[in-house]
Amino acid sequence: MAGSMQAAVIGLGSMGWGAAVSLLRAGIPTTGVDVRAEVLDKFKAEGGATATTPAGAAGDADVVFVFVVNAAQAETVLFGDNGAAAAARPGTVFALCVTMPPSATIALAEKLDGMGMLVIDAPVSGGSIKALAGEMSIMGSGAPAAFDKAAPALDAISAKIFRLGEAVGIGSQVKMINQLLAGVHIAATAEAMTLAKAVGLDLQTVFDVISESAGNSWMFGNRGPHIVNGDYTPHSAVDIFVKDLGVVSSEAGAAACPTPLTETALDLFKEASAKGLGREDDAAVAKLLAEKAGIKLPGM
Amino acid sequence: MAGSMQAAVIGLGSMGWGAAVSLLRAGIPTTGVDVRAEVLDKFKAEGGATATTPAGAAGDADVVFVFVVNAAQAETVLFGDNGAAAAARPGTVFALCVTMPPSATIALAEKLDGMGMLVIDAPVSGGSIKALAGEMSIMGSGAPAAFDKAAPALDAISAKIFRLGEAVGIGSQVKMINQLLAGVHIAATAEAMTLAKAVGLDLQTVFDVISESAGNSWMFGNRGPHIVNGDYTPHSAVDIFVKDLGVVSSEAGAAACPTPLTETALDLFKEASAKGLGREDDAAVAKLLAEKAGIKLPGM
Repeated sequence: MAGSMQAAVIGLGSMGWGAAVSLLRAGIPTTGVDVRAEVLDKFKAEGGATATTPAGAAGDADVVFVFVVNAAQAETVLFGDNGAAAAARPGTVFALCVTMPPSATIALAEKLDGMGMLVIDAPVSGGSIKALAGEMSIMGSGAPAAFDKAAPALDAISAKIFRLGEAVGIGSQVKMINQLLAGVHIAATAEAMTLAKAVGLDLQTVFDVISESAGNSWMFGNRGPHIVNGDYTPHSAVDIFVKDLGVVSSEAGAAACPTPLTETALDLFKEASAKGLGREDDAAVAKLLAEKAGIKLPGM
Repeated sequence: MAGSMQAAVIGLGSMGWGAAVSLLRAGIPTTGVDVRAEVLDKFKAEGGATATTPAGAAGDADVVFVFVVNAAQAETVLFGDNGAAAAARPGTVFALCVTMPPSATIALAEKLDGMGMLVIDAPVSGGSIKALAGEMSIMGSGAPAAFDKAAPALDAISAKIFRLGEAVGIGSQVKMINQLLAGVHIAATAEAMTLAKAVGLDLQTVFDVISESAGNSWMFGNRGPHIVNGDYTPHSAVDIFVKDLGVVSSEAGAAACPTPLTETALDLFKEASAKGLGREDDAAVAKLLAEKAGIKLPGM
């Protein structure tokens, strides 16, 4: 079935790029779309087709993956000038892999549905390295027919597909809960490591002990070494969590649900971004805290 | 060597009880001390000796484990009326297993050292079930001679002993960093689950997905099911984190190090305690958030 399928990937950032090359590797002809010409050249070198507009990629596609950064960009690539939706054949599956407010996902899906398209609410996680290996996770919801039609493509990009229900929005909601925890845990890792340094502890020792103790988290294990080694090469940037915790904050506000830890962590990411750290690795929120504490972490 | 050793355990709460029965199981004659007569009766039934004062247990002991709740209690059982220190033979090892401010640990250790005692700064983690199995973790620091002399007893109660340095205080500092993360992660778990419920998600589904995603933490895995099942039987109570995050807050303040997430989580634990939830499981901070959000979690 993969042999008769064509895919499009709109947005070749770190996650979209990983999905696009994973599709090629699975033998699925794939057209990549990005505003950056050099990224399109690189995708051609991988054996992919390219288009400069979403419309140019969507016409022949059975599955269109949307991997842009936020809801506004998703609206534009779907329904703006040369948008994908008007160019696609009815019955095309749109996999919305953007981390955006569940309310935005639902609104976009309703418009696509009205045009005869199938929609999967399909936010992803796992990071760029897993994406490149075709091993991201998909927190998916949508009609079974959409999952069935897109199955070979979904299998090509992911190691794990959570089927969370038939209603579009559930996937985005679960991703939002994941991002709440992930963002708070990154900020907590930064706070813990900064305090450890402030009281004179050896950071590698702290990392080793906590990694085997009740204070551990997935993010502590992943971002902790960035702080220990003072390496803030962006795998995922501070500004991503300004956006993602902003989504949590606005949706929680709409539900009248207090999220005090989210607000505290969001304030730290915003302040770090305002200090010029927005494009650095999200663990760089530790630099902000260290500066406030009057100490120096590795790499400062 | 275990055959010639005697131990005392002061404070038979959940962790101290676990240590005491683990010592008996390893063949080390052990005297338990507690203010609750019914706990002493239970320890006798396990084959242990008992004493009603610390002095009554410390005279014959080679290793004295202090498992009381806080620094003030540790001061009392060591140096108050019928305290352990004056009754112990010089060279006795005092293992201070209390989570308390590193500054308090250092002050107690200096007094013990001045009386010719050996001291291990030995806060523990792992929870009551691991304690009962003799599998807690020890975040230890102190003189090698103290570790060597106490080795059979330490091995009896723990699956993992971190040797963090020769200076008393390091163990308590690392434990403090662990508690910072643990406390923030519990509160974050509560916040995430409350928001999940507020937006209409199925809590078991959220738990299953997050457990395999980047939002996971040791505490989410451990406390999440308490919230999903609405079971707030106290394995570790809200008031413990009022104390432990209070330690973090005061020590961070002394180091002029900002800890905004700690402060936010501490406020939640304090507010939950003030609402009468202090003796419930620490995950009950979710009930506080749910009440603020005007929703009901399981068990409410």
